[in-house]
Amino acid sequence: MKIDLFFTPEELKENILVDKAVIVIDVLRASVTIAQALYNGCKDIIPVESAAKSLDLMQKIGRQFVLLCGERDGQKIEGFDLGNSPFEYLEPVVRDKTLIFATTNGSKAIVKVASGDKVVIGSFVNFREVLELVLNLNKDSAIVCSGKNGNFSLEDAVCGGMFVHKLQDQRKGELNDAAQAASALYQKHKENLQKVLEASDHGKFLSSLGFDKDLSFCSQLNSLPVLPILEKGRIIKYTALS
Amino acid sequence: MKIDLFFTPEELKENILVDKAVIVIDVLRASVTIAQALYNGCKDIIPVESAAKSLDLMQKIGRQFVLLCGERDGQKIEGFDLGNSPFEYLEPVVRDKTLIFATTNGSKAIVKVASGDKVVIGSFVNFREVLELVLNLNKDSAIVCSGKNGNFSLEDAVCGGMFVHKLQDQRKGELNDAAQAASALYQKHKENLQKVLEASDHGKFLSSLGFDKDLSFCSQLNSLPVLPILEKGRIIKYTALS
Repeated sequence: MKIDLFFTPEELKENILVDKAVIVIDVLRASVTIAQALYNGCKDIIPVESAAKSLDLMQKIGRQFVLLCGERDGQKIEGFDLGNSPFEYLEPVVRDKTLIFATTNGSKAIVKVASGDKVVIGSFVNFREVLELVLNLNKDSAIVCSGKNGNFSLEDAVCGGMFVHKLQDQRKGELNDAAQAASALYQKHKENLQKVLEASDHGKFLSSLGFDKDLSFCSQLNSLPVLPILEKGRIIKYTALS
Repeated sequence: MKIDLFFTPEELKENILVDKAVIVIDVLRASVTIAQALYNGCKDIIPVESAAKSLDLMQKIGRQFVLLCGERDGQKIEGFDLGNSPFEYLEPVVRDKTLIFATTNGSKAIVKVASGDKVVIGSFVNFREVLELVLNLNKDSAIVCSGKNGNFSLEDAVCGGMFVHKLQDQRKGELNDAAQAASALYQKHKENLQKVLEASDHGKFLSSLGFDKDLSFCSQLNSLPVLPILEKGRIIKYTALS
C-alpha cells in the first residue's frame, strides 16, 4: 500500500488521486466546521471554490432551501448566513439544511480532490472514524492538506502526519517524502496538539480575530464522531451504503 | 528578524523576496554541482528554466564560449556537454568557462528567486560559507527549497531546516510554519544526513540510475568551501566586492 501526502492541493498532479482513498484536511477550520454541521444534522454540504459560485448555485437551488456559508480572511462573507466557526453550526441552525460552503482553502481543496475513489474530510475531531474507514478500504491512500493560500500549514501537516503514522502502524505503507516528513512532525508534536494550532501562522491569525476558542475546539481529538464523505459534489454523512 | 521557508518555489508570492537574503537549495544535485563548478574554477554559470532557453542563449553568446549543462529525468540532455552530476564538473573541464545550466528543479528555482536582495545557492557541501554570509547580512531571510516538480522534497527540507536552526541559534528569528517544520525535520535527521538523501524520493530515483556516489558526495557537510551568489542573472563566486 502506498501512502502519499501533499502539503498543498497545488502539489497534486493530474490523475494522481484516481482509484485512491483520499483524506482531505483543513484543521483550521473547514474540516471541523463540516464535521460539526453534519454531526448537528444538516442534510448535506456543497463545497465550492468561491463566493461567486455560492451565489450562482443559490440561485439555481433557491434562496429558501440553502444556507450560504463561508469566510474570507477568516470572517463571514458579507450577506452570507454563517461564517467558518464551528460554534455557529449548531443543531437548531443547520438541522435538515443544505449548506453551500465557500472557504479560502478547505472548500477549494475538497473540490480539487473530487477525482479520488473515496474522499473523506478529516481532522483531529473525527480522526478515529476517518482512520477506520481508510483502513477498511485497504487501498493506496492520498492525504491532502489544504494549506493556506497555496502554502504549507503546520496544523494540517501534523494532522496529516498523524494519519500517516496510524495507517503505517497497521499497514506498513510506502511513504512519499512529504508523508515521511509529516509523520515525523506528528511524532514531535503529538503530546500537545492545541499548542501546534496556537503556534501556527493561521492559528495566530485566528487568535488575532478573537477566535481563540476555535483553536481549542479544533484540537480536541475524537470529539465529533462523524464521517463526512464527498459523493457527487456533496458532502454527506457516511453510511455503509455510501 | 524573520526567517521564512518555502518548500517549493511555487509557494512564493509576488514581491515576497524583495529586500531579503535568499538561500536557494537543491541538495540533489544542482546546488552541489554549482558549488563544485565554481570551486573548480569556472568563470560563471547562467541558470535558465529550460533546455530551449539554453540553446537560445548559446546562439547569442556563441557555441565555442560556453558549456551546455543540465539534465532531464536525472540524465544529461541530448547534445549537451555535461549533465548534473558534480563528478562531471572537474577542473580541466570547467576552468574559466561560462556554463549555461538547465535542470528540472534547481536552475528554475534560482531564476525564480532573482528578486531577492542577495541570492546565495546553498547546500550541505557549502553550508558554513552560506550561513556566515547570511548571518553577516543580518536581515529578513527566505529559504527556498527547489523541491521536485513542484512537490516537497525531504532532502531540501532538511537542509533548509539546518539553515533555520543555525540562523535561529544566533538571531532568534520569527519563523513561518514551514521554517518551524523544517527545523524540526533537521533536528530529527541531523545525525545521518546521507541516510536522509538515500531515503528520499529523489535519492531513490538517482540510485536507480546508478548515481549512488552522488548521494554520498551531496551529503558531505562543508566539503566545498565556496559561496555561489546570483548577480545580474549569473552565478559567480562571492567576494567582498560582490
